Amino acid sequence: MALKYSTTNKKRKASKRGLPPESLVFTGEKMLAEPVVSLISFNEQELEEIRIGSASDLPPQIAEDKVTWLNMDGVHDITFIEAVGKNFGLHPLILEDVLDTSQRPKAEVYDDVVFFVARMLSHSETGHVISVEQVCFVLSKNFVITFQEGKQGDVFEEVRERLRRSKGKSRKSKADYLFYELLDAIVDNYFVILEKVGNELEELEDDILKNKKNAVLHELHNLKSEILLVRKSIWPLRDALTKTEREENSLISKSTRIYLRDTIDHAIQEIETIETYRDLLASLQDLYLSTLSNKMNEVMKLLTIITTIFIPLSFIAGVYGMNFKHMPELEWQYGYFLILFIMLVIGGGMLKYFRVKKWL
Amino acid sequence: MALKYSTTNKKRKASKRGLPPESLVFTGEKMLAEPVVSLISFNEQELEEIRIGSASDLPPQIAEDKVTWLNMDGVHDITFIEAVGKNFGLHPLILEDVLDTSQRPKAEVYDDVVFFVARMLSHSETGHVISVEQVCFVLSKNFVITFQEGKQGDVFEEVRERLRRSKGKSRKSKADYLFYELLDAIVDNYFVILEKVGNELEELEDDILKNKKNAVLHELHNLKSEILLVRKSIWPLRDALTKTEREENSLISKSTRIYLRDTIDHAIQEIETIETYRDLLASLQDLYLSTLSNKMNEVMKLLTIITTIFIPLSFIAGVYGMNFKHMPELEWQYGYFLILFIMLVIGGGMLKYFRVKKWL
Amino acid sequence: MALKYSTTNKKRKASKRGLPPESLVFTGEKMLAEPVVSLISFNEQELEEIRIGSASDLPPQIAEDKVTWLNMDGVHDITFIEAVGKNFGLHPLILEDVLDTSQRPKAEVYDDVVFFVARMLSHSETGHVISVEQVCFVLSKNFVITFQEGKQGDVFEEVRERLRRSKGKSRKSKADYLFYELLDAIVDNYFVILEKVGNELEELEDDILKNKKNAVLHELHNLKSEILLVRKSIWPLRDALTKTEREENSLISKSTRIYLRDTIDHAIQEIETIETYRDLLASLQDLYLSTLSNKMNEVMKLLTIITTIFIPLSFIAGVYGMNFKHMPELEWQYGYFLILFIMLVIGGGMLKYFRVKKWL
Amino acid sequence: MALKYSTTNKKRKASKRGLPPESLVFTGEKMLAEPVVSLISFNEQELEEIRIGSASDLPPQIAEDKVTWLNMDGVHDITFIEAVGKNFGLHPLILEDVLDTSQRPKAEVYDDVVFFVARMLSHSETGHVISVEQVCFVLSKNFVITFQEGKQGDVFEEVRERLRRSKGKSRKSKADYLFYELLDAIVDNYFVILEKVGNELEELEDDILKNKKNAVLHELHNLKSEILLVRKSIWPLRDALTKTEREENSLISKSTRIYLRDTIDHAIQEIETIETYRDLLASLQDLYLSTLSNKMNEVMKLLTIITTIFIPLSFIAGVYGMNFKHMPELEWQYGYFLILFIMLVIGGGMLKYFRVKKWL
Amino acid sequence: MALKYSTTNKKRKASKRGLPPESLVFTGEKMLAEPVVSLISFNEQELEEIRIGSASDLPPQIAEDKVTWLNMDGVHDITFIEAVGKNFGLHPLILEDVLDTSQRPKAEVYDDVVFFVARMLSHSETGHVISVEQVCFVLSKNFVITFQEGKQGDVFEEVRERLRRSKGKSRKSKADYLFYELLDAIVDNYFVILEKVGNELEELEDDILKNKKNAVLHELHNLKSEILLVRKSIWPLRDALTKTEREENSLISKSTRIYLRDTIDHAIQEIETIETYRDLLASLQDLYLSTLSNKMNEVMKLLTIITTIFIPLSFIAGVYGMNFKHMPELEWQYGYFLILFIMLVIGGGMLKYFRVKKWL
Repeated sequence: MALKYSTTNKKRKASKRGLPPESLVFTGEKMLAEPVVSLISFNEQELEEIRIGSASDLPPQIAEDKVTWLNMDGVHDITFIEAVGKNFGLHPLILEDVLDTSQRPKAEVYDDVVFFVARMLSHSETGHVISVEQVCFVLSKNFVITFQEGKQGDVFEEVRERLRRSKGKSRKSKADYLFYELLDAIVDNYFVILEKVGNELEELEDDILKNKKNAVLHELHNLKSEILLVRKSIWPLRDALTKTEREENSLISKSTRIYLRDTIDHAIQEIETIETYRDLLASLQDLYLSTLSNKMNEVMKLLTIITTIFIPLSFIAGVYGMNFKHMPELEWQYGYFLILFIMLVIGGGMLKYFRVKKWL
Repeated sequence: MALKYSTTNKKRKASKRGLPPESLVFTGEKMLAEPVVSLISFNEQELEEIRIGSASDLPPQIAEDKVTWLNMDGVHDITFIEAVGKNFGLHPLILEDVLDTSQRPKAEVYDDVVFFVARMLSHSETGHVISVEQVCFVLSKNFVITFQEGKQGDVFEEVRERLRRSKGKSRKSKADYLFYELLDAIVDNYFVILEKVGNELEELEDDILKNKKNAVLHELHNLKSEILLVRKSIWPLRDALTKTEREENSLISKSTRIYLRDTIDHAIQEIETIETYRDLLASLQDLYLSTLSNKMNEVMKLLTIITTIFIPLSFIAGVYGMNFKHMPELEWQYGYFLILFIMLVIGGGMLKYFRVKKWL
Repeated sequence: MALKYSTTNKKRKASKRGLPPESLVFTGEKMLAEPVVSLISFNEQELEEIRIGSASDLPPQIAEDKVTWLNMDGVHDITFIEAVGKNFGLHPLILEDVLDTSQRPKAEVYDDVVFFVARMLSHSETGHVISVEQVCFVLSKNFVITFQEGKQGDVFEEVRERLRRSKGKSRKSKADYLFYELLDAIVDNYFVILEKVGNELEELEDDILKNKKNAVLHELHNLKSEILLVRKSIWPLRDALTKTEREENSLISKSTRIYLRDTIDHAIQEIETIETYRDLLASLQDLYLSTLSNKMNEVMKLLTIITTIFIPLSFIAGVYGMNFKHMPELEWQYGYFLILFIMLVIGGGMLKYFRVKKWL
Repeated sequence: MALKYSTTNKKRKASKRGLPPESLVFTGEKMLAEPVVSLISFNEQELEEIRIGSASDLPPQIAEDKVTWLNMDGVHDITFIEAVGKNFGLHPLILEDVLDTSQRPKAEVYDDVVFFVARMLSHSETGHVISVEQVCFVLSKNFVITFQEGKQGDVFEEVRERLRRSKGKSRKSKADYLFYELLDAIVDNYFVILEKVGNELEELEDDILKNKKNAVLHELHNLKSEILLVRKSIWPLRDALTKTEREENSLISKSTRIYLRDTIDHAIQEIETIETYRDLLASLQDLYLSTLSNKMNEVMKLLTIITTIFIPLSFIAGVYGMNFKHMPELEWQYGYFLILFIMLVIGGGMLKYFRVKKWL
Repeated sequence: MALKYSTTNKKRKASKRGLPPESLVFTGEKMLAEPVVSLISFNEQELEEIRIGSASDLPPQIAEDKVTWLNMDGVHDITFIEAVGKNFGLHPLILEDVLDTSQRPKAEVYDDVVFFVARMLSHSETGHVISVEQVCFVLSKNFVITFQEGKQGDVFEEVRERLRRSKGKSRKSKADYLFYELLDAIVDNYFVILEKVGNELEELEDDILKNKKNAVLHELHNLKSEILLVRKSIWPLRDALTKTEREENSLISKSTRIYLRDTIDHAIQEIETIETYRDLLASLQDLYLSTLSNKMNEVMKLLTIITTIFIPLSFIAGVYGMNFKHMPELEWQYGYFLILFIMLVIGGGMLKYFRVKKWL
């Protein structure tokens, strides 16, 4: 559940309290036994892809004429992270942020480096569980580093494929274009989540309109939590993207900025969709609650009609069930039929009354 | 239903994920078998109107001294679109946006071209179905291109008529005035939708005030979705119009900007109307729910009055219906009449009590 | 009703769709058979007041050393309006706006002219009907033109009186001061409407607090619509006034601007009042609904108390009303009295229980 | 009641309509038979305090080397006010604002004068009546004029005392410091009101938590109106203070501005408190309404349990109370006891069912 | 309770009214019998820590080449505070703010000193009591002074430990870094509170989803008050931090500003968490109330089903329990069985009806 997610992270973060500000502490959940590190370096002519098993395998020097992309799955190995930091000359505060897996999406634009934090959402096949994975980017002049928590699924595979097949502009461009492509893959992936949420909304609407009782209340609550979680990921992401695009910085070329603007457009579209979902969910909730009230009204009407008709009749029957010695009506020849007729008149009158009141 | 619309588009968009950023993929629904393309070129003296059957019919050169307007209905034919793009020198990102029929209204002002995305709403004759059609505009120095999805109905016909009959300023002006006229036609068309929504609101108000039960709840929900949909189209449209009017750009002349400002005024008026409708709808919903509560209260009162009067009386009748051997009252000469009188007193007292409490 | 007003206008506006942008079409409701036009021209020494019967009576020249005020009641006579436009050199867009009686309040500051649209509200004597009349102003160097729809009632009469009697600064000042006086009359008139709305709120509060049932729900709904309507008129009016006061423009002198600031102050005060009314109305609605719930609770309690006491007792009576051959208790000498005593104990116990639970 | 206050004022204001803009009309309620006017003039060495009985007693000249403070209680005497205006050279618009006792707090910074309008709140000893008194300030180089409506109670007495006893910085400073001290006295006085409102909130919370029924609904409504009234006074006051502090003006020295900033801080703190109260009140209202629903649920459960157990049993008793000739069970030796046993089983089963459902 | 806290402080503050602006009055609650004052002065080489018993023990001179940190627990001893003020050259307004323990978090950046007010929250072990302690900071070139109210618990101990052990950058840096470390300790401590609040939310969610009845309503109300309290502390803290970081000031070095930015990031993250909690709490409240409505509906249905089935049957039994002489059915051989059968049919029909209506 969304709620659980958000508190779990605070818990871990709280455990860091009391340490000096820059201490490297992993605050997430360990996903993989070992971090999986791959290094791709390419230019228009060639592409080299290697797997890095340990910190010592890291390349001592980064080729100036190539774009180098280091991807790290699993960020719990502090020594490894520190080695990467030393190798690529990263600031300790960046490493600290990489290890803290409950960052909110943000962009920090330094002189020689852009540091970017985003969230990758994935929707589990069954049930309403959106899992969140933090992805950190470091963009420098000729390299990009990405740090993932190492959960299952990876939206970067398509970018990798494109590089390998030398498709599109990817191979001809600089590190900033690769950086854009990776961000774009993450932002585009939100559409998949939004589609799933949209489907759930549609199903819920059907359930409510057709009066099915599939735990509508819990469903509403779950959808609300989900939408909250997606919003929380996507709003700051937009801000971070805008900041990256606007900030004066020589790392990102003017032509890449145009592409980034496209990504921002997508993010805005996603935000609008999620806000529409929120409104629709609120409308559905109103609808559901009003439906409940409506049904209640109907139930109450039935109860009232039945009670109001039969209680007076029962009272009359009760009166003539009394055992008084002297009850003249009881002796009458047609007393019984007279009383039945009176009862009929009363009952009929009641029905008439309800029809006039439009209750029937 | 509005809800369905919004999710359908995300679904298609999501299917594009994994492709390189600029790939041309059609993400909408195919409306026409073939795209219908017409080309009008005119100046004050003459007007030529031709139908373009295939990509090869596109004019190799655009007349410098005329205004050329290419209108394309149906944007699923990617090769055709690409040919148009090549012919008029459009940027690949523009073509990508044209093919993606779930864009939000926006304006992009380049050096040599203004790209504008708007939505055309139309209200089906029966029921509450607002259908949405995306329209993309490309304005250059001497031509305007419009791309429509190809749904039924077209608000541009009136502009075409004006051009043919040489009415108004249309024929004497440049491409920017044509561009304004087309935008104005779209914005003015929203008033028709708003009028229909307003009528539905009025009917709903009548239904609620006169206590008719025409599925008020579903109606409320539908109207909410409709208003949400119109808002979603009209708010970004205003922003896009304002951006177009403000941005320093030589394509749009100062005099046309004054007309654009008028269009913006209309858009603002529409926004205000839609916001008023939202407030009125909320007020109607409150009214309806309170009416429900009120009725419930009345029903409960009736139930309580009847029950409270007759249950004690029935109890008394029950007591004297018991079969004990020794029940002295039963032997009394006027026991029966005494009891009837006591019942009358109790019942009358109850009625009195309810009258004092103002329940009757 | 407010709701009806707002949709009616859209309807007429929608009918204009399809015409070229500047066509003059009257979109309002015809109020007078003939437009009533009066022309006052004055300076400190003299004042001349003439009635203009037809377009040909319009003065060919406007005196340079006098202030001329043309007031037109009824804007459905398009030829007349066009003649006025030609006579005073007005831009066609201004005439178009004058004829469209569903404009939102706005100010447009041109080089030689200020065009201002405001709304005059009036409250009918009986019932909750606020009627809206659009007033357009054209301010030039030495004349002011006002266009009214021609509904009954006119807040300008007092200004006219002041001019005639040479009271205040009016006669000594230029056209801009007259313009300010007319705007001030309109803004001050809102206080009258606000007072009436305030009185209705007070009455409604009384009705709710004293539990009177004068169709509270419909009253709440009507007041909400009224407040919505007043807000819709007053918010853009404030913006228009501010724009007029701020915009660099030689038509309005510095000293008149100080007076305009006073008018803006009044408008802000009115806005604050209307917002307070909105909050109070929301609070009243909460109060009313809670009162309903509360009453419901009381009704339910009474029902429950009566039922809970008598149903078990009736059951006991029912048991001893059974006709079994062998029911030993029936034969007992004091069986009847014993049972009556048991019933008394049960009933008393129930009452005790309810007293402990604080239901009685 | 707050509501009444706000409308009363509009009523009087509306009565002013139709008069020329600058006419001096008193729009408030007359509090005192005669205005009470006192004049204090002081410097570090000496302090003179005189009572001014009529307009003719006003000092013809204001000492240049002293600070003069004229305080006027009661602003209904227009001739007196006009005399003061002439004596101290005040602008007619200032006098008009002084006479209009429904101004919203505001600051107007002219070249030679600062005009400030504030509201003094006081809480009556009994009940929830917050009374509002408008106080106007005029600050010039060497004098301060304060106009009060003349209601009971005066937060300025402490300032006067300080001046008399030569305490603090007061006697050594200029008119601007006196102006600050007076404003500070008004702002600090809000804390007293807030404390009272806070106490009422606490009492209300107690009442709701402990289920006391002291007209909670009306109390909620009253508190809401009170909070609305305080907000309406305090928000614009903060804006006016900030404007006074920021505006470039030689009347207020840099050192006094530092003190004013402190006053602004207090105003912000008060705003925050009042907003917190609003949130708490909303939370209390939710709590109360939910408590009602909860109780309703309990009542309904009891009703349902009793009814559901006894109605079937009564039915059985009714069946065996029928007078058919041939009812074999009635003849059985142990029929009665069997039926009693069956009833016991049914009743017990029902109780079991309710226990399983956790209703008991 | 949060509510109580906030009003208590206003009460004390109100008691200060009537005193001259700069008078030193303690407005808090006395926590310690005696203030506990410690003084740590250090540079990279050495660290000296002394306990200061009385005002006379204060060091006459502050070492220029060391960082001096004076921490004072308990701020009720006005003479002591005044001595500190004189010793370190603090402005009287700072001392006044230190003594007023109901300040909202703020930063005031003077030329030679930064004055900062923050709040330290701590969560009691049992129950929902968040206690608030105000902490004031004074940062000058070579000293930091901290004033605490003296409640139990102190988040500064870890900083002290770090200084003693010469860990991290602490000992090598200037006073501004110490100032940052102390602020960071406070901000990080909020994560602990947020974690506890998050746990309570989770428990509440469990209680509601699993239908446990642990005074959910009061819990909701308490959590709302808690969240309100935390928000009220954390929002202005962020503003104060941002102001400190941005304001041009030579006291805080550029490198320390980078660290402050990190602290601001944490504060933003905490704000986001608290806002998410607010939304979740609102969703939980909706869920709870809807659950109540739902249960009510079920209860009502059961009641209606039982009543609707048995009341008509009881009526029939009542009819044949009447004692009329001539009731032919009573004489029939199988009258009893016929009636039983009719009752069965009616009861079965009712059940069928409820099944069709999906109530069963």
